[in-house]
Amino acid sequence: MIHHITVATRGQGLHDITSEVAARVRRAAVREGLCTVFVRHTSASLLIQENADPSARRDLEAWFARLVPENDALYTHTLEGPDDMPSHIKSALTATSLAIPVSEGRLALGTWQGIFLWEHRRGRQQRHLVVHIGP
Amino acid sequence: MIHHITVATRGQGLHDITSEVAARVRRAAVREGLCTVFVRHTSASLLIQENADPSARRDLEAWFARLVPENDALYTHTLEGPDDMPSHIKSALTATSLAIPVSEGRLALGTWQGIFLWEHRRGRQQRHLVVHIGP
Amino acid sequence: MIHHITVATRGQGLHDITSEVAARVRRAAVREGLCTVFVRHTSASLLIQENADPSARRDLEAWFARLVPENDALYTHTLEGPDDMPSHIKSALTATSLAIPVSEGRLALGTWQGIFLWEHRRGRQQRHLVVHIGP
Repeated sequence: MIHHITVATRGQGLHDITSEVAARVRRAAVREGLCTVFVRHTSASLLIQENADPSARRDLEAWFARLVPENDALYTHTLEGPDDMPSHIKSALTATSLAIPVSEGRLALGTWQGIFLWEHRRGRQQRHLVVHIGP
Repeated sequence: MIHHITVATRGQGLHDITSEVAARVRRAAVREGLCTVFVRHTSASLLIQENADPSARRDLEAWFARLVPENDALYTHTLEGPDDMPSHIKSALTATSLAIPVSEGRLALGTWQGIFLWEHRRGRQQRHLVVHIGP
Repeated sequence: MIHHITVATRGQGLHDITSEVAARVRRAAVREGLCTVFVRHTSASLLIQENADPSARRDLEAWFARLVPENDALYTHTLEGPDDMPSHIKSALTATSLAIPVSEGRLALGTWQGIFLWEHRRGRQQRHLVVHIGP
């Protein structure tokens, strides 16, 4: 079963999509299975991270921003703006697809885990996700 | 089919879980399929790496420890100890889920590939994994 | 359904394998499902990245080469050559398996997404991929 989810992002950061994904799993009424989330972009990515304390996510974003700065003299792919090449690199360092088992009809996430869409571009974007739920 | 595996870790490092996962695949008696391993934590992660020479794994751990040091002035999320924020970052840089095809009833790993749980915290932990084996 | 693909690589770089994977999906004649690509090596990895402008891929390769240089004094695993340990680290930072939903009989990739095998070794290699296509 395939579901499409569109997320409107307004600048860089981690967007919690756990409830959107969980809703598709409930609707699928699969007792045991596998839920795969896929992002159809190369300048946004997916991450399972700490869902409780927002300071952990802020530090994560700050650490990646320092590791992959804008305006690095190494970049030649600069036509789409200074935030484009860092976006591709951050996407390569994180995930384009995530698989989460479904157990007893629910995502088998740990207590402190949330599913996040990581927007790496500065501007407003429409991000398209595909969710597959299988047996 | 869903299996739960608990791994008791005693400090940072790569723990080989290949035989635990392979045992579930044998028991599932699936000839062709897909085995997905998921870790229910955000301060431990999964990795497929060299299973032969332990020096490759030691260098990998040392390299990540240098890239993501403790006590970085950037961190604000420090309440859970100096090893907590590096754990979240290392988890983001590696994998929360891994999918390995099953072929002829066995994990289709390469000769030199092992499946590892990467413990990023210093203390003793009980780590929960979920293994999904599908058609 | 399991397919095996062998890719002959001639030195470091991103090799577009999208059409090889797409051909297996067409042959499978699955309308909705999940396609998982797995690389059976620890010194080559998988990546979904920008398929249009080659400068984005060149910058990505240059950025990773700078982050993970050869001949780092930290390495002790050096018997297999100066490009071996960086290969393991780059593989750990990217992906060993990728899952792409199949929708309307085709890979649900975004317009600008390609599937790449990332060869991290300098020499000629035969790289083995396993593709699983499930319901």
